[in-house]
Amino acid sequence: MSILVVGSVAFDTVETPFGTADDALGGAAIYFSAAASYFSQVNLVGVVGEDFDATQIKFLEGRSVDLRGLETKPGKTFRWGGVYRDDLNERETTFTHLNVFQEFKPTIPEAYRNSEYIFLANIAPELQLDVLNQVQSPKLVALDTMNFWIEGSLPALKEVLKKVDVLTINDSEAKLLTGESNQIKAARAIQAMGPKVLIIKKGEHGALLLFEDLSFFSAPAFPLESLYDPTGAGDTFAGGFMGYLAKCDDLSAESFKQALVAGSTMASFCVEKFSLERLKDLSAEEIRTRVQNFWKMTNFNPEGKGFQF
Amino acid sequence: MSILVVGSVAFDTVETPFGTADDALGGAAIYFSAAASYFSQVNLVGVVGEDFDATQIKFLEGRSVDLRGLETKPGKTFRWGGVYRDDLNERETTFTHLNVFQEFKPTIPEAYRNSEYIFLANIAPELQLDVLNQVQSPKLVALDTMNFWIEGSLPALKEVLKKVDVLTINDSEAKLLTGESNQIKAARAIQAMGPKVLIIKKGEHGALLLFEDLSFFSAPAFPLESLYDPTGAGDTFAGGFMGYLAKCDDLSAESFKQALVAGSTMASFCVEKFSLERLKDLSAEEIRTRVQNFWKMTNFNPEGKGFQF
Repeated sequence: MSILVVGSVAFDTVETPFGTADDALGGAAIYFSAAASYFSQVNLVGVVGEDFDATQIKFLEGRSVDLRGLETKPGKTFRWGGVYRDDLNERETTFTHLNVFQEFKPTIPEAYRNSEYIFLANIAPELQLDVLNQVQSPKLVALDTMNFWIEGSLPALKEVLKKVDVLTINDSEAKLLTGESNQIKAARAIQAMGPKVLIIKKGEHGALLLFEDLSFFSAPAFPLESLYDPTGAGDTFAGGFMGYLAKCDDLSAESFKQALVAGSTMASFCVEKFSLERLKDLSAEEIRTRVQNFWKMTNFNPEGKGFQF
Repeated sequence: MSILVVGSVAFDTVETPFGTADDALGGAAIYFSAAASYFSQVNLVGVVGEDFDATQIKFLEGRSVDLRGLETKPGKTFRWGGVYRDDLNERETTFTHLNVFQEFKPTIPEAYRNSEYIFLANIAPELQLDVLNQVQSPKLVALDTMNFWIEGSLPALKEVLKKVDVLTINDSEAKLLTGESNQIKAARAIQAMGPKVLIIKKGEHGALLLFEDLSFFSAPAFPLESLYDPTGAGDTFAGGFMGYLAKCDDLSAESFKQALVAGSTMASFCVEKFSLERLKDLSAEEIRTRVQNFWKMTNFNPEGKGFQF
């Protein structure tokens, strides 16, 4: 099945304790597409400026990402700068130059409109809603957002959430959105807004999937000795997750669980190098091996001798 | 197999967003013993003052905890006060009255000296070392510590660590002890100090077990709608972990994994009520059901359709 992703395409200038990257390829739609493309065909909608060098994303075409929805507009491409200190969970934005992204008004190409799986990356909720108005009846819609929209565009966000199946969010965003600091209470409040499945992203602590019946599935983050750059990990996670679901085209609980592991797996590769470097040419064997390692890291026998009383 | 635990017995005055407890039974040795006693026989060494009412710990005797090592000294019992705000991961100590605990000098009763499993709760490393000098050849020694000792008694701590098999520690303590913020590098540095197995306690994010070969096992924290009081969760975790190992008397990797889940399970009960309330009379069925729920929360098929490339 095909996936539609609508989101940013950017050049990132990143500093971490392990090095720097200047004007490196980034943006939610790019990270998402690179990860999802290991599993499914992806249709990308985004905008770049006249300074964008298309050869940089040539590898995406090779991975069956349709780039016809990537518009070029007069002006410069979106640029973002950030610094990660010792604690890679916290970053400081050094600059945000929206450039052509400021006026981004997604137009979904005719050929994309029957995409079955849709990921609305972190953009203004009004635009997310506009995307949904342009597509036919998708099987699954997932949405990402951030504090900025929860604080500044809550009515529009609530409007689009009514049409969303899966929300990816972190703890502080969930609390801001619902006023609840308890995860389960926050989850119930969000379910009442629309999305029945929640993915709570916890960075180095992994991710938690909450189903409609409030049962859980938890995936740890993969412990890495070489963790270079967390930029894009969340969107890479979403790409692995949606890519997996679209590949299986099965919305059972077991399939969602495997998709969460697929997302965590792709995110664990993403952070091993700067920018998209690690996501360009992973082998099937590398992905499968890491999935097996995730399994070894979480699998235990609940009928062990000590559990017999 | 029997377990020896040496640590604090205290009265805690705790305030959380959900209520308060005044002079409630607490202390590392008590939480540990209560949890471990569901799996194994426990020998407790600690000290209380003349104000201690022994009927409060009557339930421990009923759960095969040997209290002959609990000394009564002239003076008052150790008292601690703390406040948890909205973020239950962070607490503020309001007072610490060491009282008789100030002069605690653990004497291991003759009958305890052949305990096979030993847990040195968070006390001065000099005392932890002294305990090890009083026991015969244990099968497994685990140790807990804190920033205070890492900063103030590092030489003694390093001395006792040489004789320790399992260290329980949190991320900030591991960083303080080793100067490494990367988990794997910190783990390797700690292994070089003595303990071959590390348990990284992450509070609401669960726990991570690192084996000698640097492979991992991760257990999430169990998401709870009613989380009332985190006090004692770490020691309860250690009690479940050591109790499980002692019950199985098996130090295989699979056994350690199950023990981590046993620890997480007991900790998840601990925080559901104030003080020891929830740990007094759990049923075998309650424990087994929660272990099954942990399994459901982490188990997935790594051979799922989407992982076939």
